[in-house]
Amino acid sequence: MPIKEGDYVLIVGDGVRSVVRVVRGSRISTIRGIINADDIINREYGTLIRTNLGYSVALLRPLITDMLLERADRVTQVIYPKDAAQIIIGAGVGPGSRVAEAGVGSGFMTAILAYYVRPSGRVYGYDKREDAISTARRNLEMLGLLDWVELKLRDVIADGFAERDLDAVILDMGDPWNAIPKATEALRPDGTLVVYVPTANQVIKVLTAMSDYGYVDVKMVDVMVREWKTEPNEVRPQTWVNAHTGYILIGRRTLRSVTQPAK
Amino acid sequence: MPIKEGDYVLIVGDGVRSVVRVVRGSRISTIRGIINADDIINREYGTLIRTNLGYSVALLRPLITDMLLERADRVTQVIYPKDAAQIIIGAGVGPGSRVAEAGVGSGFMTAILAYYVRPSGRVYGYDKREDAISTARRNLEMLGLLDWVELKLRDVIADGFAERDLDAVILDMGDPWNAIPKATEALRPDGTLVVYVPTANQVIKVLTAMSDYGYVDVKMVDVMVREWKTEPNEVRPQTWVNAHTGYILIGRRTLRSVTQPAK
Amino acid sequence: MPIKEGDYVLIVGDGVRSVVRVVRGSRISTIRGIINADDIINREYGTLIRTNLGYSVALLRPLITDMLLERADRVTQVIYPKDAAQIIIGAGVGPGSRVAEAGVGSGFMTAILAYYVRPSGRVYGYDKREDAISTARRNLEMLGLLDWVELKLRDVIADGFAERDLDAVILDMGDPWNAIPKATEALRPDGTLVVYVPTANQVIKVLTAMSDYGYVDVKMVDVMVREWKTEPNEVRPQTWVNAHTGYILIGRRTLRSVTQPAK
Amino acid sequence: MPIKEGDYVLIVGDGVRSVVRVVRGSRISTIRGIINADDIINREYGTLIRTNLGYSVALLRPLITDMLLERADRVTQVIYPKDAAQIIIGAGVGPGSRVAEAGVGSGFMTAILAYYVRPSGRVYGYDKREDAISTARRNLEMLGLLDWVELKLRDVIADGFAERDLDAVILDMGDPWNAIPKATEALRPDGTLVVYVPTANQVIKVLTAMSDYGYVDVKMVDVMVREWKTEPNEVRPQTWVNAHTGYILIGRRTLRSVTQPAK
Repeated sequence: MPIKEGDYVLIVGDGVRSVVRVVRGSRISTIRGIINADDIINREYGTLIRTNLGYSVALLRPLITDMLLERADRVTQVIYPKDAAQIIIGAGVGPGSRVAEAGVGSGFMTAILAYYVRPSGRVYGYDKREDAISTARRNLEMLGLLDWVELKLRDVIADGFAERDLDAVILDMGDPWNAIPKATEALRPDGTLVVYVPTANQVIKVLTAMSDYGYVDVKMVDVMVREWKTEPNEVRPQTWVNAHTGYILIGRRTLRSVTQPAK
Repeated sequence: MPIKEGDYVLIVGDGVRSVVRVVRGSRISTIRGIINADDIINREYGTLIRTNLGYSVALLRPLITDMLLERADRVTQVIYPKDAAQIIIGAGVGPGSRVAEAGVGSGFMTAILAYYVRPSGRVYGYDKREDAISTARRNLEMLGLLDWVELKLRDVIADGFAERDLDAVILDMGDPWNAIPKATEALRPDGTLVVYVPTANQVIKVLTAMSDYGYVDVKMVDVMVREWKTEPNEVRPQTWVNAHTGYILIGRRTLRSVTQPAK
Repeated sequence: MPIKEGDYVLIVGDGVRSVVRVVRGSRISTIRGIINADDIINREYGTLIRTNLGYSVALLRPLITDMLLERADRVTQVIYPKDAAQIIIGAGVGPGSRVAEAGVGSGFMTAILAYYVRPSGRVYGYDKREDAISTARRNLEMLGLLDWVELKLRDVIADGFAERDLDAVILDMGDPWNAIPKATEALRPDGTLVVYVPTANQVIKVLTAMSDYGYVDVKMVDVMVREWKTEPNEVRPQTWVNAHTGYILIGRRTLRSVTQPAK
Repeated sequence: MPIKEGDYVLIVGDGVRSVVRVVRGSRISTIRGIINADDIINREYGTLIRTNLGYSVALLRPLITDMLLERADRVTQVIYPKDAAQIIIGAGVGPGSRVAEAGVGSGFMTAILAYYVRPSGRVYGYDKREDAISTARRNLEMLGLLDWVELKLRDVIADGFAERDLDAVILDMGDPWNAIPKATEALRPDGTLVVYVPTANQVIKVLTAMSDYGYVDVKMVDVMVREWKTEPNEVRPQTWVNAHTGYILIGRRTLRSVTQPAK
């Protein structure tokens, strides 16, 4: 498959790792020297090319995680791919799923949801911050995923979700316990609620609310993904690791679930 | 959505957690008493029902992970959902991807791949053990995912993959370094190779081979997913955790990648 | 050094790992066969001997952790050596330290404290349960450490500690926040308070209390010690690990620390 | 206990954390303002004092770990207190133990060993680098621990240890497998060998050597100590953690242990 003008290309090698957009006539700068965009247009993905300083770099199609981590804008703390992956599988979200998310923040989780519900599913993304909605829209557009997402500037605690009978609702906000009544209304009777919070204080409030509102099969995990060095002669974990992002809580609604607390 | 004869139902509550198949006229035994199948047919998913001993349990549609963990047969050590999730996202596998896997073992990873490449993608599953192929087929059939999978009884080290230009190849076998030449042939020029191995000894051999065969952007992670107790008054990790399953290595082929080692 | 009658001996090899007491004329049973006690008396520690079934086992002096894990009685959940080690170093406890502990439970932490404050230090061990005090005494006696410990049947929340100007106080009880006023009285003005609790709910209460009572330099850690297989050809972590025992909180008293809360 | 001229004092509060030496007439600078040394001489440890900018800080006796982490010089990668604590307890090192260490590097492990073998034990510290020996000496002198340590500029692989019948030998060097024959000579017949290495490649070589040289009861662990935030309203692990320092291998010599490999 040849590289075309306008493509995003992942350039990797000799300490270089970045995603660039190919614009005819432009020069692509890396920490290992310069590449002329015109020299890579029409080359196959997978090609290795030398920079003007003689370093060899590979030209690859970026994966969705490369795009998110190297190109997407951030206005908020984001949900990292490692946690997004566990949420997707833990909630059973897949092609065809109808999912709501509040709040979307920079749209990282939204993008991964959109990627996996294609082509027949749909993601409804809520946030009460205008800059979040516009950043998420820009990121989703860059990723080519906006067709599967409806973004809405709206406070779900006050005004709720517009959808009903959803497969899953994902809450990524400071006080998710306050959004559980509205999330319950929006879920199908045995739908999946996912809550993502960074602190143990919040966990206690979420667990209390999930119990009060009749959720069952409640699980909670934290995910530690440890990166390793990959030199064959020096196999060891990286010294520093992002050891905590957030706790993932997952439960199932039932017909006993209510929009008023049990007690 | 009503429960129908033949459905798999996840029954949850008061210490009960199992997936049963609904057969008219049958009695469903749980550790909290018995439910008559006829009493749940045509009830909505999400319903709570009492066993003959008076315990309340919820009737839910099982997620794919519930089916795998509660119902699927195992003839081999399996790739757990936590690792499968990181492989899927790490390799960028999604709707439409064309992916090969060797060996399929009990088909857990195969099932999760099939779930996420739907509806337009395809999974090619190889194993040299006949019992693995037949167990995987049975599991995929039960999960309704066989339409997206071609299972092949074949030793990929000797005989290679029948496909070309694949988006990803996943190696889950004892000596994956020996399969890298054939995997390289089967991948698209910038395709993704994933290797899953349990020991550090194997890691060293895989990293050496990935380097020799010209792979770039090589990453390695191990995933620890810690489960927590979910009583609001006793928030703490479970005492015992499955702390090690395997190491996940991911790299990208390039046009420099070869089917003979570099040295 | 020769093995003598009455010694505790660690027997290790071919799947055997146990600590036995040598009694003249007795037969020592292992899962790999029998050894006559008379055959090992006067042999050097470090000797290898064959059981009656022909298996080779080594005769070693047990370390304090071998004695605790293989021989000591338990009436309660114990503080494991991995956590005890971090408490000892985190609190700066060493030869000469004067330390109080409430509650002693089965005396595991007490024993390790006594081991490290020798010969000139002292451990004051409190518990309100009579069976705990008597179990701890029995364990300490077996370990030869009772000379450095004073055990006291007393509720420290109600009746406080008898000592003053202690280097460290260690609280291992269900509601340690209630013991902080009395611990503060017992500590030297810049002494170290250690609290050990298993749940996040307790952590929140302890941190609040440590702040209210004027403690500074407060730290909190959890310790995960992962055991590995040690076959040179199969280097990998053990599958299952004890992933959570308790949280360790450590802070320093100051002259502003009070026995009434700050607010 | 009053602060005296020449004392090391741990100053803590409002983001300040450092160990300073009290010199009459000097000004102590912190990121929260200045303290006059003369104002703190003769004050009690535990006192709170205001800087010239009005911030309150506490004056505490530093623990050994505070001294190491805040004041000691480093010429090499050091063994951190979390690992040192597991080595101490795992090897049963305590008051009275006779222990050798190669190489001492900056003397962090040496210092902790010396601290715990006091008053009747002894540490023999070897290194082949002159700058390591002199840095370790300076650090031990500052800590007041030099009386329990003999430092020796010597290559133990070539020239061995001068001691015999040691309780424990600790190897912290790049190629520890080469030092095992000499370590075996120096240990008592059932003595404890500890090896500390950062990579899986080294682990494989060490395990092979420990097996070849007749060591038994071999264990291997890695220690992850996760630090938490300690604000009562925001209880969560720190985001970034030092997730890997080294692997700790511990085994027992026997009379079968040899100074030539088994095969």
